[in-house]
Amino acid sequence: MTAYSRLTARAARIATLGEAQAMLGWDASAVMPTGGAAARGEQFAVLASLSHGLSTAPDIADDLAEAEANPPENVWDAENLRLLRAGHTRATALPADLVEAFARVSNECDQIWRTARANADFAAVAPKLAELMGLVREKAQAYGAAFGVSPYDAMMDTYQRGITAADVAPIFAEYETFLRDALPRVEELQNSRPAPLRPQGPFHEDVQEALCRRLSLRTGLEAEHSRLDRSTHPFCGGTPTDVRITTRYSTEDFSKSLMGVLHETGHALYERGLPTAYARQPVGEAAGMAAHESQSLIMEMQACRSDAFLRFLGPDLHTTFGGDAAPYAPENLGRITRRVSRGFIRVDADEMTYPAHIILRFRLEQALISGDLAVADLPGAWNEGMQTLLGITPPNDAQGVLQDIHWYAGLVGYFPSYSLGAMAAAQLMATARREVPGLDDGLAIGDFAPLLGWLRAKFHSQGSRWGFNDLLRFATGKPLDPADFRAHLTARYLA
Amino acid sequence: MTAYSRLTARAARIATLGEAQAMLGWDASAVMPTGGAAARGEQFAVLASLSHGLSTAPDIADDLAEAEANPPENVWDAENLRLLRAGHTRATALPADLVEAFARVSNECDQIWRTARANADFAAVAPKLAELMGLVREKAQAYGAAFGVSPYDAMMDTYQRGITAADVAPIFAEYETFLRDALPRVEELQNSRPAPLRPQGPFHEDVQEALCRRLSLRTGLEAEHSRLDRSTHPFCGGTPTDVRITTRYSTEDFSKSLMGVLHETGHALYERGLPTAYARQPVGEAAGMAAHESQSLIMEMQACRSDAFLRFLGPDLHTTFGGDAAPYAPENLGRITRRVSRGFIRVDADEMTYPAHIILRFRLEQALISGDLAVADLPGAWNEGMQTLLGITPPNDAQGVLQDIHWYAGLVGYFPSYSLGAMAAAQLMATARREVPGLDDGLAIGDFAPLLGWLRAKFHSQGSRWGFNDLLRFATGKPLDPADFRAHLTARYLA
Repeated sequence: MTAYSRLTARAARIATLGEAQAMLGWDASAVMPTGGAAARGEQFAVLASLSHGLSTAPDIADDLAEAEANPPENVWDAENLRLLRAGHTRATALPADLVEAFARVSNECDQIWRTARANADFAAVAPKLAELMGLVREKAQAYGAAFGVSPYDAMMDTYQRGITAADVAPIFAEYETFLRDALPRVEELQNSRPAPLRPQGPFHEDVQEALCRRLSLRTGLEAEHSRLDRSTHPFCGGTPTDVRITTRYSTEDFSKSLMGVLHETGHALYERGLPTAYARQPVGEAAGMAAHESQSLIMEMQACRSDAFLRFLGPDLHTTFGGDAAPYAPENLGRITRRVSRGFIRVDADEMTYPAHIILRFRLEQALISGDLAVADLPGAWNEGMQTLLGITPPNDAQGVLQDIHWYAGLVGYFPSYSLGAMAAAQLMATARREVPGLDDGLAIGDFAPLLGWLRAKFHSQGSRWGFNDLLRFATGKPLDPADFRAHLTARYLA
Repeated sequence: MTAYSRLTARAARIATLGEAQAMLGWDASAVMPTGGAAARGEQFAVLASLSHGLSTAPDIADDLAEAEANPPENVWDAENLRLLRAGHTRATALPADLVEAFARVSNECDQIWRTARANADFAAVAPKLAELMGLVREKAQAYGAAFGVSPYDAMMDTYQRGITAADVAPIFAEYETFLRDALPRVEELQNSRPAPLRPQGPFHEDVQEALCRRLSLRTGLEAEHSRLDRSTHPFCGGTPTDVRITTRYSTEDFSKSLMGVLHETGHALYERGLPTAYARQPVGEAAGMAAHESQSLIMEMQACRSDAFLRFLGPDLHTTFGGDAAPYAPENLGRITRRVSRGFIRVDADEMTYPAHIILRFRLEQALISGDLAVADLPGAWNEGMQTLLGITPPNDAQGVLQDIHWYAGLVGYFPSYSLGAMAAAQLMATARREVPGLDDGLAIGDFAPLLGWLRAKFHSQGSRWGFNDLLRFATGKPLDPADFRAHLTARYLA
């Protein structure tokens, strides 16, 4: 066995253990009875500790050095070796006491946050958040030093490699300018048009589930490699050959679950399309969180809210739910599913105002990491930012700085991925439309094969061979270019 | 940390890993899409290899010796230490090449058996079975030498400690005599009575599922610690705080699933009642397969097919399914659920003829292990035994020697557990009836609390503190005494 093959065997073992963890995670969210929670926590802890033991085995460093002295010629294996090295650098960059303290404090902060959010009481969680941010800063500095990049870039890289804060900042600044001009015009236009007709429920959950599953499979997801279940917090989990989507249903409104399932289906299709020759190797994994979000959003926002697809969807929905046909007319469905509205809550935001929520968090978390912003000043900075970006001020911190779990669980550097994904989705769709004849004609008859075929070839099959901007360069001929996203919004909301 | 506490910490880690394996096993049988099977196989392999690594860590032997030099005073911990020693002896008794060969050949034989059974072609699997039995013999000899017992007793001990072939042989011989006399009389009496009225289906699967779940919970199983799902092969899996029962439904006949779920509920209640202070320790586990079967059968056969419970069940079923009331009359339900019939297939057998199937297998597998019976002669010996025991001869080997997976997967010494469990169930029920006033009055109103309370105190809470006969001695004042089982059958079928 060569040093490189020892490394890949070990990586496969760790990844397989990760699959077991993913499956148990799905189980805990989707089907586990509440009484199983304590035992499940212990199971996760044992698996994590075994995984950690494998990841930090003392002979990895020797194998890496030996493999790097005589690197594989194949570009995929060469990249895989670089990713194995980066993974090892990351796994060994933090002192053990920091890892332990971070695990403990992030768990404590997460718990306190739940109550604080329920009571809209930022002060209750502020001291613990300050302690946690101190640890995040130490972590960011250690990673930054290990990789020779800035602390914040090192954190961003944890979630999405191949794009930096310096790349993102001007893109977000441009978007802010765009939004300041476009948003009032969109609102004016929207207000000048008829209010959407709301389809009359109740919509039986089983009927919704069958509809969601049917449309999810229509995109090209295979029944024998996927499931659709229910959970409080919708997600896409499982493994590439066994992807598990969850959602929750409201009997009053089917559109949220439906679009949610199509969103998760985009994630699922990406996992299904990853290169099987490099399964369970770093280079065979999804390219990062922004890349993943681009795939959920190209499905949900670009394809399934398109004029073309709504022409297919309307009659299908009417057949499914019956009742008055008018609310299911494609134009009306468009008014329902593409409504722009300034709001306080990120996860409820439309695609146009969503980036404002991200820009706010991107700026604040950089300031937190650099130490320019104290935790005590966070609610004020938040509300000020909301006023500047969207012209609204949250009535309380539950609808402001307390709304998202990320920071309170120690996740910093993740937020930009959401909007980078949205922008990449528009760029990918614009390219696909140019390169694939009949793409929208396909969507208009519920045929996703042209789009999926293009995504498979240009994106899914590339695994982690490239960082974010290089992947976009491969797929679209250029790095992230927000002009496509602005053009998409302009066409959809200002035409 | 003392040597003993190091041992218990390691045991807990291995048991927790076992829980993860159990959960993934449930998932594979109950919900996994077919496309996930290959990856799941890899996940099991990695978890098994990690578990094996923990079980055979080189410092265990030192810790055992150190702990035994100064054993714990508490009887539970003292017994736990003995069980840890036995587990280590077992884990290290086999040479690595035998373990490897057994895993490979048993898997091959299992695969060949599936086709051989479908084609009723014993000759197709005979050479591989002979190879496998050679390995089973080596294994039995190695375990026998390690524990200082006979090879067959060493195999039986794998599934149920505390009872030997020498204990079982006379019990089974006595039963054969009893059956020779009683079976024709039962058949005559049965034939003299009206044939059972069959309730008219179809019985909607969802309605059956709700019924099964409701009755399963009525026994005392807690909703927050259990699930009921569907699988091709019904089982009870999961972990003590998260037990998962599965069944399959026929729209033509609800009684099989219902009794099947109540059977699995007995297993589940046992797991729920194990001593939590010794959770994840050998002494805190169920006492063995025969002990486990006694708990499924005391629920299914003793409690739920009793006259008392059928008086509760009849009206409930009629309310559930509607239609004509007559088939749901308790006496008629008794005729349906307690029908004796000589048949070829063990898993379809009634409680009276079931032991004949086990006696046959018990005798044959001893002869296979001792070398007194060649694999080539197995079908003939099987058919001869069926003729002697039940007076019937299978029309082909699919309904004879090929029917059960056990031997073809290398499981020898397991079969006796089924009937030891049935006999123990009768003995436990007889004792409970003596000791608990109003036990049948409770069952007649669907109240299982008196029975469950007694089982908790006398059986479940004892974990693996005792071997089989000693556990029965603790619970009933005597070792396994088949007279109670015969008395039960006589009262139920010859009154």
